[in-house]
Amino acid sequence: MATWKSEARAPVVGIIGGGQLARMMFQSALSLGIEVHILRSESDESLNKIAKEVTTASQFDPTTLYHFARKCDVVTFDHELIPAQLVQELSDRNCTIFPSADTLALAADKAKQRKALQAEGIPVPKFAVVETAMELEAISTAFEFPLVLKAARGGFDGRGVHRFSTLEQATQFMRDTKSQVPYVVESELEIEAELAVLVVTGQQSADRVTYPPIQTRQFDGICVEAFWPTELDPEVEAEAIELAMRVADTVGSVGVLAVEFFLVDGKLLVNELAPRVHNSGHLTIEGAVTSQFENHLRAVTGLPLGSTEMISPVAMVNLIPADSVTKGAINLEGALLVPEAKVHDYSKTARPNRKIAHISVLAEDAQSALKRAWEAARASLQGRILGDPEDDSVEPDA
Amino acid sequence: MATWKSEARAPVVGIIGGGQLARMMFQSALSLGIEVHILRSESDESLNKIAKEVTTASQFDPTTLYHFARKCDVVTFDHELIPAQLVQELSDRNCTIFPSADTLALAADKAKQRKALQAEGIPVPKFAVVETAMELEAISTAFEFPLVLKAARGGFDGRGVHRFSTLEQATQFMRDTKSQVPYVVESELEIEAELAVLVVTGQQSADRVTYPPIQTRQFDGICVEAFWPTELDPEVEAEAIELAMRVADTVGSVGVLAVEFFLVDGKLLVNELAPRVHNSGHLTIEGAVTSQFENHLRAVTGLPLGSTEMISPVAMVNLIPADSVTKGAINLEGALLVPEAKVHDYSKTARPNRKIAHISVLAEDAQSALKRAWEAARASLQGRILGDPEDDSVEPDA
Repeated sequence: MATWKSEARAPVVGIIGGGQLARMMFQSALSLGIEVHILRSESDESLNKIAKEVTTASQFDPTTLYHFARKCDVVTFDHELIPAQLVQELSDRNCTIFPSADTLALAADKAKQRKALQAEGIPVPKFAVVETAMELEAISTAFEFPLVLKAARGGFDGRGVHRFSTLEQATQFMRDTKSQVPYVVESELEIEAELAVLVVTGQQSADRVTYPPIQTRQFDGICVEAFWPTELDPEVEAEAIELAMRVADTVGSVGVLAVEFFLVDGKLLVNELAPRVHNSGHLTIEGAVTSQFENHLRAVTGLPLGSTEMISPVAMVNLIPADSVTKGAINLEGALLVPEAKVHDYSKTARPNRKIAHISVLAEDAQSALKRAWEAARASLQGRILGDPEDDSVEPDA
Repeated sequence: MATWKSEARAPVVGIIGGGQLARMMFQSALSLGIEVHILRSESDESLNKIAKEVTTASQFDPTTLYHFARKCDVVTFDHELIPAQLVQELSDRNCTIFPSADTLALAADKAKQRKALQAEGIPVPKFAVVETAMELEAISTAFEFPLVLKAARGGFDGRGVHRFSTLEQATQFMRDTKSQVPYVVESELEIEAELAVLVVTGQQSADRVTYPPIQTRQFDGICVEAFWPTELDPEVEAEAIELAMRVADTVGSVGVLAVEFFLVDGKLLVNELAPRVHNSGHLTIEGAVTSQFENHLRAVTGLPLGSTEMISPVAMVNLIPADSVTKGAINLEGALLVPEAKVHDYSKTARPNRKIAHISVLAEDAQSALKRAWEAARASLQGRILGDPEDDSVEPDA
């Protein structure tokens, strides 16, 4: 780690994964003069035609990983799908890698995560972990219906989450499922608001900054918009920040940790966490002094962390085609007719339910920003956008 | 030009030159999904290790240029050193290139530029154009000393500018000089302030936006700092914007045009212009809704122009080693100890009088921002920085 400093050169950061999070870290690294190497899989499109140092290979092959890591001062991720065991092996072979295997293991397993947070007295939704239909039946009376089953591992963007109105349906699902993972069982909650707090931790845990809370809205389990300031009481915000820092202590993260909350009956519950830059934090590019991408790079390379101060109210809308679109590319011309729209195109092929870009707008207040961001979003895609508040042709599943 | 739109794909922009301006355009293009190809010379370092599509070749070789241009939807520049004739030939062969040969010809020749502006009634410093010592002698009584001679072509960052206390020295210089270019003759002016206005013009001249005026400070003819809002009266600012738009009409630019002004005896004089993104405009990255880099790309590709609204007071300081520095790299760790400092490293080898990075800071007012930016600048280089207001070990030449 100290090598680049003692050699008076710029640090080299390896990123496992070549999606939009890697792309925005790469973009951010350009400012600091940090060199970025990407380990992408065949299907990762976002940096393939752009960055010079891109290796295309299986991201989970130990030999590939090791050779990749050896070329970098530090390795980080744009997803948490890599097995923690592989990360541990790299670490054992003197590669520097953040977040750590322990953090990744907790992040990748919703069941372990919930238990670890609960053990620290951090409020989480009431839950149980089951592996079989029989186990589910045994604990079912403790929960109200509808019941939600979440695969402990492998799910994201709403995938791996299932909702059942009756116990019969739920146990049938557990009997039928081919997945070998445990499930986290919860009652469906009446969620008043969802928010996320991004905590950035440096290599010493005392070196820590938090961003102001971000309010999010999901549709079918996928984040469709985010904004700040939130509509919540300052005390709720302060509590969210306090809890997020306790979560960061629990998981021992280095870099950005996104902690997602539900507000239920006026009470904050930690829903889940991601030890990486996060969709909710895209609005920090325009809305904060230092973006989450830059701060993540600063944290993993051991540089001082940047100011997380809010520059302006801001809203972000994800461009997610809700159905098959006729054209592959975003209509930039349409989107940019909103002169304050900041378009972030990920250079990905459009597919239903896939995040292909986001649009942020600064404004006097978050609601005006949201309105303008959605206007730009509608002008940028031919076809429906997931979660469009003016699109009443669909209702969310949940 | 219309190809990429009709093909529903992202535009490909070719940039001639691979310095920091190309680097920041590349960085900005990432957001819009615009593909950037770079034509760099051997000595251009800024994008060499970063961007995938980089061609290393003579930027002035007609065949190389043509093949490069054919791969792009539109070609633009990070410098105005390319002969206008070459640009005209590309244009004649159906390559799309902005700014045009006519604009470049005016920009690259200070004598032609001055005459064209004067013909439009735009206020410029009193000047004459001479090619020989005899011509200089003939017109010398019309000027006060010290006398300034500026090479009409080939100068930048203070190079090609010479100051003389006596007629003898000046005529001797004209006799001795090997340069085959005409010189613009001026009296040295008592400059109260320098400012720049960036005008962005789309493909229809009606499609135009201007940024708020930027105040700059030069040291030995090199820009060392810039900030906004300026310290000038609103009426002076309004006049500067008005004049800058008239200059844009005169030179017929597409893309960013930087118009630099002197304020002398309370009167604005157009000093010079650059038909490209400009050092004074780096502060638009953090300080404006849309950066000059993004707006230049939007203009040359025919996309709608973005809002130029000021987000916040901001100051930018150039990191220019004033003498030989011991270490090649910027001390990122030092610079980033100012938590609100935004460092932009150009990945260039440090050399005296070379711009190797810049640092921007947002603050409540421009003077506080300047103070913090200089603090971060001092922490980022071992050795003196050109134009450091707290460094009284040197006096500017002029």
